[in-house]
Amino acid sequence: MAKEKKLVESIIDMELDFPQWYTDVVKKADLTDYSTLKGCMIIRPYGYAIWELIQKELDRRFKETGHENVYMPMFIPESLLQKEKDHVEGFAPEVAWVTHGGETKLQERICVRPTSETLFCDHYANLIHSYRDLPKLYNQWCSVVRWEKTTRPFLRTTEFLWQEGHTAHATAEEAEEETVRMLNVYADFCHEYLAIPVIKGEKTAKERFAGAKATYTIESLMHDGKALQSGTSHNFGDGFARAFDIQYTDKENQLQYVHQTSWGMTTRLIGALIMVHGDNSGLVLPPKVAPTQVIIIPIAQHKEGVLEKAEALRESLSKCCRVKLDDSDKSAGWKFSEYEMKGVPLRLEVGPKDLEKNQAVIARRDTGEKIVVSLEELEEKIPVLLQEVQDTLLKKATERRDSKTYTATNMEEFERTLNETPGFVKAMWCGDQACEDAIKEKTAATSRCIPFEQEEISDTCVCCGKKAKHMVYWGRSY
Amino acid sequence: MAKEKKLVESIIDMELDFPQWYTDVVKKADLTDYSTLKGCMIIRPYGYAIWELIQKELDRRFKETGHENVYMPMFIPESLLQKEKDHVEGFAPEVAWVTHGGETKLQERICVRPTSETLFCDHYANLIHSYRDLPKLYNQWCSVVRWEKTTRPFLRTTEFLWQEGHTAHATAEEAEEETVRMLNVYADFCHEYLAIPVIKGEKTAKERFAGAKATYTIESLMHDGKALQSGTSHNFGDGFARAFDIQYTDKENQLQYVHQTSWGMTTRLIGALIMVHGDNSGLVLPPKVAPTQVIIIPIAQHKEGVLEKAEALRESLSKCCRVKLDDSDKSAGWKFSEYEMKGVPLRLEVGPKDLEKNQAVIARRDTGEKIVVSLEELEEKIPVLLQEVQDTLLKKATERRDSKTYTATNMEEFERTLNETPGFVKAMWCGDQACEDAIKEKTAATSRCIPFEQEEISDTCVCCGKKAKHMVYWGRSY
Repeated sequence: MAKEKKLVESIIDMELDFPQWYTDVVKKADLTDYSTLKGCMIIRPYGYAIWELIQKELDRRFKETGHENVYMPMFIPESLLQKEKDHVEGFAPEVAWVTHGGETKLQERICVRPTSETLFCDHYANLIHSYRDLPKLYNQWCSVVRWEKTTRPFLRTTEFLWQEGHTAHATAEEAEEETVRMLNVYADFCHEYLAIPVIKGEKTAKERFAGAKATYTIESLMHDGKALQSGTSHNFGDGFARAFDIQYTDKENQLQYVHQTSWGMTTRLIGALIMVHGDNSGLVLPPKVAPTQVIIIPIAQHKEGVLEKAEALRESLSKCCRVKLDDSDKSAGWKFSEYEMKGVPLRLEVGPKDLEKNQAVIARRDTGEKIVVSLEELEEKIPVLLQEVQDTLLKKATERRDSKTYTATNMEEFERTLNETPGFVKAMWCGDQACEDAIKEKTAATSRCIPFEQEEISDTCVCCGKKAKHMVYWGRSY
Repeated sequence: MAKEKKLVESIIDMELDFPQWYTDVVKKADLTDYSTLKGCMIIRPYGYAIWELIQKELDRRFKETGHENVYMPMFIPESLLQKEKDHVEGFAPEVAWVTHGGETKLQERICVRPTSETLFCDHYANLIHSYRDLPKLYNQWCSVVRWEKTTRPFLRTTEFLWQEGHTAHATAEEAEEETVRMLNVYADFCHEYLAIPVIKGEKTAKERFAGAKATYTIESLMHDGKALQSGTSHNFGDGFARAFDIQYTDKENQLQYVHQTSWGMTTRLIGALIMVHGDNSGLVLPPKVAPTQVIIIPIAQHKEGVLEKAEALRESLSKCCRVKLDDSDKSAGWKFSEYEMKGVPLRLEVGPKDLEKNQAVIARRDTGEKIVVSLEELEEKIPVLLQEVQDTLLKKATERRDSKTYTATNMEEFERTLNETPGFVKAMWCGDQACEDAIKEKTAATSRCIPFEQEEISDTCVCCGKKAKHMVYWGRSY
């Protein structure tokens, strides 16, 4: 395919400077603005509309799998945060501490939640008494705070929006089932809705969530060959239950600890959308997550009948898609660039000549292809085209991901691959953290996951040469 | 009407102890739980489901009137909070201060937003340059924190959920129009959705929002005769614009300050629902805001065919309402009380005898009335009944509010009315804050609003006897 014609000069080419390209797109597509407080972002209407679509669809999937929404306080007293040792070690260094309420110094300082395991555990200890109270399948939509040093819109910010599921189960088996179920919900959502292919697998012990027995992850690959952890699901076993004393009486009248899980997805997904689908004209949105799926742009709109027809089309198309009409007095060329930058999947042009022929011209954002459609067929054709764009984006992203996935059987190959052709490197690992550390030290790559679908690339660990235990996806990451 | 039969013994009569009745309902209807941190509440699934319905409907009305959602950071640097003098004086005494990020002491302390005027102003100063950038019609769904000494679930808590609209306009007239428009959106929402009648009016200067030029309010009346401020809409004029330097170039190329508004509604509305519609059997929910509108309770569910039929009914009714089936092994009597406590508008009983007669029995939560309906007519009858319950609740609430609204022409009458028959007192006022203070001192009543619909109760101020300027609604309040 020919290189797409660059229509907007104000953003840099992604091949020249990918980080700058990302910053340009975030800004020029009106997704975020900087706030006075370093590291915090303002999510602007267009960015927030994408998040609302993500929320709505995820929430539907959570409810379909039996989960209920709740709201927990945003504050955690220090003593509560400290109840589970691994957890507090993982989070205490990066929380924001509140020390004063109004003019009064607090007796105990409290932190703004970095995540809410401790709050849910405290609540569950009050709620759960009998096997009849189980399972508890709760989710919460909120913002959390982690005091980050280096920040970047959507990818890493001091405050970000997310959902956090927290569940309690009678048995270890049920908790494990739930952990995997929700990872699959995440993976399906990414495939079907965001058109982002993901690798499902388990994190190594080193990369596990603070306090978890097992962390499962979905990993996606960005345009620049860097990996992005896109969602995680944790099995806590009964570790938190023991720390918080969450026990229930089973059917044999015996006291048992519950088994717990948690899982989360964040506004970082918007960063993934940008870096998986975007191009040198800006954002490219899969139709399912596009706030505007079709933008109608009248051509020579001062000519008689053009605006009336454009408005009539908007009205009739609003039954089959999210459609907008831009009848502002800006030039058609300016509008073309603007909606390309914003990644609107289909542009519908209608001008005097089209009206004469009773037709409109549709331009696809993903391929640039132009299609002439008779006005009568529009309502039928547009949903088909939107689905085609959706499918094409998933296909392209999968091909790109696959073409940037390599294997390595020794460290020299490993390092060269990452330096020359950034992407995922599949390589065998002995299971020893020393090798994981050495690889990171040498290549700046981390273990992304031990994929559920294992392959036998060689017999020996890529680092130490001892007998291999797992095939691992490695990569440099956001 | 005969006094409703009390079916649940575990809550106190509202006539005996209204505050305790409120606390009982909140707890027994599973709306909230207490958290470790005093003053913060946990909103449980049933309570949160009510909030989700409120959000969905309000959000629809905001978007219909041209507003867009955004997300601002939860933190405000102290220097930003201090930019508008009245505003900081109003809020600084009750904010939570963050002084440390991880292990590092912050150079400037930051507060958790008590409201976001300052953040929106800062953003608008960046965004707005020309008259073409106006109006800006933004809204945000989030939580805010106010360090309260005395707290009560939904009514007054350290952290609460709300929406805050923030708009910027070219002219004073447009800002005033917006302020009134959103007050009307709130009032209509209360009437049509929550079945809560409200008085619309303006707050006196003393009761105005910190930094506002005018505050409009909707006031509702609770079962115990106390008033509840249920939503407010503020016109800021150009006060914030001057403090934050938000200027635009008008069509004549002149620099002008924008005119701003803000408006908010909170989870306190759930408190209003409880205290306006509840009775001695618990919560009573208007169907539009009821997470479950119809609860199906099988009678003698072990008998052949009962559960199958109940499930078939649930399936078919799910097309016309939010319906649930309780097929747990608890007794029918227990289930009756449980769903009465939760305020489910309609209970549908179906047992072996009903099946023989091809019918079901529907019990209305609001009146206790039982209606026999043939199974074929259910899908047609239930939406009609739900609308009847909705209308009846609004009618009853309006009648109750009107019967508890009194007039007074002197202080003796004013005081006696409030002590003997708590409710709204309509009385004339000279406009002098000294009288407002004296009335509060003497009666613990505050001015609720200067209603848009004025009446001439007498010529003279109820307090000082001088010439009256306004008729005012007074009352003790939450």
